[in-house]
Amino acid sequence: MKTISTDKSHGGTQGVYVSRSDACGCDMTFAVFVPPQAAKGNCPVLWYLSGLTCTHANVMDKGEYRRLAAELGVIVICPDTSPRGEHVPDEPDNWQFGKGAGFYVDATQPPFSANYRMYSYIVDELPRLLAAEFPVDMDRQAIFGHSMGGHGAITIALKNPDRFRSCSAFAPISHPSVSGWSKPAFRKYLGADEKTWRAYDACSLIEDGHHFPELLVDQGTADSFLEDGLRPGELKQACEAAGIKLQLRMQDGYGHSYFFISTFMEDHLRWHAQRLGDRK
Amino acid sequence: MKTISTDKSHGGTQGVYVSRSDACGCDMTFAVFVPPQAAKGNCPVLWYLSGLTCTHANVMDKGEYRRLAAELGVIVICPDTSPRGEHVPDEPDNWQFGKGAGFYVDATQPPFSANYRMYSYIVDELPRLLAAEFPVDMDRQAIFGHSMGGHGAITIALKNPDRFRSCSAFAPISHPSVSGWSKPAFRKYLGADEKTWRAYDACSLIEDGHHFPELLVDQGTADSFLEDGLRPGELKQACEAAGIKLQLRMQDGYGHSYFFISTFMEDHLRWHAQRLGDRK
Repeated sequence: MKTISTDKSHGGTQGVYVSRSDACGCDMTFAVFVPPQAAKGNCPVLWYLSGLTCTHANVMDKGEYRRLAAELGVIVICPDTSPRGEHVPDEPDNWQFGKGAGFYVDATQPPFSANYRMYSYIVDELPRLLAAEFPVDMDRQAIFGHSMGGHGAITIALKNPDRFRSCSAFAPISHPSVSGWSKPAFRKYLGADEKTWRAYDACSLIEDGHHFPELLVDQGTADSFLEDGLRPGELKQACEAAGIKLQLRMQDGYGHSYFFISTFMEDHLRWHAQRLGDRK
Repeated sequence: MKTISTDKSHGGTQGVYVSRSDACGCDMTFAVFVPPQAAKGNCPVLWYLSGLTCTHANVMDKGEYRRLAAELGVIVICPDTSPRGEHVPDEPDNWQFGKGAGFYVDATQPPFSANYRMYSYIVDELPRLLAAEFPVDMDRQAIFGHSMGGHGAITIALKNPDRFRSCSAFAPISHPSVSGWSKPAFRKYLGADEKTWRAYDACSLIEDGHHFPELLVDQGTADSFLEDGLRPGELKQACEAAGIKLQLRMQDGYGHSYFFISTFMEDHLRWHAQRLGDRK
């Protein structure tokens, strides 16, 4: 692991790091905020997964999470959204596929399967690195994200319910295997057999019996991706049918950007901090 | 005036606008945050002037001012830092001069004098536009800024003490006519006669009898520009000699970036809001 930068902020340290990823076959950059409480002992970990077109930097710059993370004593991890590098296959003119659009899946289709393994990177590889390099209490983890990253957070929590004490999302892509936004990407990463897509689709996972006790979702009513891309109503139906306690808050007049996310960042951080609570 | 974008954030509206500037001979972009309190009446105005290389967008994205501005009921104006456009003379490889580096002066030297008139734009032209277009109480104004924008805020407050109720800065360029950072720019904008530079130099203005009752300045101790570029010690000496109450806070371990600014943004907004207080 190589340190790209560290900056003092809100009493803690905002760092940016790069490490070789075996899962993705490339160097991967990520951001870690370590609050001042880490000087006294390991801190709980909150994962933030970003949306389409983002790197680690968007939420680091615009997410306004450091003030609360420093107050609450939470380490915030912000990974990249896809593999990177000249050797990584891409569709440069398509912002919904390839670089910046890894969709947190392990691709099975060549040529993408060599690098687009963001699920394994986030779930297996990066946690090992963090546990070795940062003052993290890996028994206390939570996960949240925005849009494609909200999809990532919810699907990863559903598949790893014992690892995460809480999960929330801003405007998540709730049903990616049916929305026009993500369906073409799923086809290219995972192949034509749509049954295989269910392993990376929040609504399908819930239908197939995966469970998480509760979810908090904020969704702006002025979000232009609401109807086709995001589909919170379908998540609500799936959660109701499965007995998952979903708190879906429709936020009047808010859009899809970080102006929306930063507004409700404090609520999400407090919600996670309550559930991260004490050490085991 | 044309609206580029408006986004709901923290209960208010973050807008970006463009208007033709006669002072600068080009279109100028600026950001305005209007808090929810504006629905009930005109709100006080806080000007934020940005530093070298910035546009209106840097503080809008990274400054973390909206939460507090929405709580305190303050309109925040974030102008650009220089004229823009293909016809505007520039030194593209020099980040300390030309576009992104207007230094809030009215240039007197051709070819720069045709466009680099940021002082007139900020002090005369943009306030008229704001008064016409936004729910502003122009009897309640305050000003702050970062680095080159801290220089701009302090010099503009010193020259217009009746207009601004308060002034503060993050890591201001305190003595630009002597620091290696800004001296070459002053020479090109204002000419070889260094006496003319004093009108745009906080320390010189104070020595020459300009007065402002009090200043709040935060400065990171790990700021790499501290010694030559910024020179807060010289501002302190000038303020002490002139009886200006300067609160200079050296912030241990902080750098020059928005990681630093965002940390102390709340302090500055509360400080200004206290002084913006009631209507006249």
